[in-house]
Amino acid sequence: MHPIQAVRWSPDCRAVRIIDQTALPERFVERDLRTLDDVCTAIASLAVRGAPAIGIAGAMGLVVSLDSFDDQSADALRARTAVHAHRIIATRPTAANLAWAVNAVAAQAMLPAASSGAVLAAMRAKAAALLEDDGAMCRRIGELGVSLLADGARVMTHCNAGALATTGMGTALAPVYVATERGLHVSVLACETRPLLQGGRLTSWELSRAGVPVRVITDGSAAHAMREGRVDLVIVGADRIAANGDTANKIGTYALAIAARHHGIPFYVAAPSSTFDPALATGDAIPIEQRGRDEVARVAGRVIVPNEVPVDNPAFDVTPAALISAIVSDRAIHTPPYRFGES
Amino acid sequence: MHPIQAVRWSPDCRAVRIIDQTALPERFVERDLRTLDDVCTAIASLAVRGAPAIGIAGAMGLVVSLDSFDDQSADALRARTAVHAHRIIATRPTAANLAWAVNAVAAQAMLPAASSGAVLAAMRAKAAALLEDDGAMCRRIGELGVSLLADGARVMTHCNAGALATTGMGTALAPVYVATERGLHVSVLACETRPLLQGGRLTSWELSRAGVPVRVITDGSAAHAMREGRVDLVIVGADRIAANGDTANKIGTYALAIAARHHGIPFYVAAPSSTFDPALATGDAIPIEQRGRDEVARVAGRVIVPNEVPVDNPAFDVTPAALISAIVSDRAIHTPPYRFGES
Repeated sequence: MHPIQAVRWSPDCRAVRIIDQTALPERFVERDLRTLDDVCTAIASLAVRGAPAIGIAGAMGLVVSLDSFDDQSADALRARTAVHAHRIIATRPTAANLAWAVNAVAAQAMLPAASSGAVLAAMRAKAAALLEDDGAMCRRIGELGVSLLADGARVMTHCNAGALATTGMGTALAPVYVATERGLHVSVLACETRPLLQGGRLTSWELSRAGVPVRVITDGSAAHAMREGRVDLVIVGADRIAANGDTANKIGTYALAIAARHHGIPFYVAAPSSTFDPALATGDAIPIEQRGRDEVARVAGRVIVPNEVPVDNPAFDVTPAALISAIVSDRAIHTPPYRFGES
Repeated sequence: MHPIQAVRWSPDCRAVRIIDQTALPERFVERDLRTLDDVCTAIASLAVRGAPAIGIAGAMGLVVSLDSFDDQSADALRARTAVHAHRIIATRPTAANLAWAVNAVAAQAMLPAASSGAVLAAMRAKAAALLEDDGAMCRRIGELGVSLLADGARVMTHCNAGALATTGMGTALAPVYVATERGLHVSVLACETRPLLQGGRLTSWELSRAGVPVRVITDGSAAHAMREGRVDLVIVGADRIAANGDTANKIGTYALAIAARHHGIPFYVAAPSSTFDPALATGDAIPIEQRGRDEVARVAGRVIVPNEVPVDNPAFDVTPAALISAIVSDRAIHTPPYRFGES
């Protein structure tokens, strides 16, 4: 079950082909990213989004952005690689995967190689391997996480941690897709996820397209749905997980975790190993990206907050490990107390 | 401090003049309601909204909708009154104030009176008295509630329970206005309140216009703001309060109450006596209005949920009394355990 592929190579392998997620659900548009500006703009504008997907898009984007420098010396290409990698990583400061994947590709340039062509080939091979691994990682999360879902399970999720957020079947939604493959009847209550409505626009779109029953609710009504007994478990993705299990994810996740605890509903995080950042002892050290005012103050061009009134727009919040029932990675279902070391 | 008047008589007293709240904050538009359809449409479309304001608008609207029947017999006018009252009350099933205020005016028609003119005059006098009382009620809530605010207090609120929701200085915002009058420096963090964004559009507008510092956040980031230590107390309005203190208010209120409890932050409800419904033992008996799909699925005309995906849109939720630190009415600050009897 793999309804769409959010990030892949273009047919000539000279571009990163993405589904432009800013156009969904109204229009299905694919775009080819060729230059450094293309790549950075696509990530910053959330045309490609989701921690695993931006990691892979950034890694592949680093390669294609260097294609036109193949006539330079290997050393000049190495210097250029460092510049491009730095710019791509700076587009989204919170996600651990982006730095991880871009640095993994950039590291290939530092290995001994006589020609710039050989350097580029090594980098391209690494990016291709990451792309392959990402899809396999999603399936492993799904196959581990499906054990958390009973037949008939009603899953609440936030934002989009599905196929559109990865290059495979997603992270939080992977157990849902695997359960559906296996003939279990599971349904999803998708929180719309203001300000950018990834739940309303994207999670609903990809689940519906895959034939999984899904309903959309506003973020503020999630606790009400729990009180009505309409939620069996919550699964969300993650943008960065500290050594103690504290988890940064889309703004609004923390509120869901508190409400789930209040109602005695299990709250799960699903994320690939690349999301873990053992160098951070706790979530207090996770940088929280503050995004622009207009994401909140305007919707579809309409002014919804008076111009003279300030707006806060943190992109993420941190859910303390104490509120997380288990963390599903591609390696294991981790249960408290969490202690993630260097792998 | 009374920045605007949301509901009043037109100069000729033959219409109810309202601020059209669907146009804010982009445009300030006043509209005159003359017919039964005008009144019902304005309430159903939320052009006039807020439990106290729709109560007064409904009561005044009942009077003006009957003006053209003054050539009928007193008994014919009485029958017509019952029909109009029933239709107005049916526009919003959750708010206690609407039925209370409309019935109070309709009851005047049942008193002995020889002519339809005398019946109409009695109803008009009652509606005018309710309008007057509402403003006084707001001030009393403010003068009682201000004791909850220290200098420098940072208040979180939800939806709009301010001047735009009443015909006076509001309910939840009345303590903020009185504190400001008295020279205290208080500020407000306004949750935008999806789906209709009354916090982002209306609370921000009226506070800013009155010179009170206000910032807007998404509903999903309220718990994050509490965790950051940026909220000293929460005050919200109410649409109906059961005998045991369980409180129906705008969807999203319950989630804030849970988050406030989790962070040890006081959570207050402010509402006039007309909001109390002692006939209901608990909140379980409060009817929850389900509103239309498009309020969630479209914003400013843009499709944000795919057409094939269903949406849940409850307008209200019920916050159990156990999560409410105190209820400020126009009569007293009520503290737990709540026991509201017939007054």
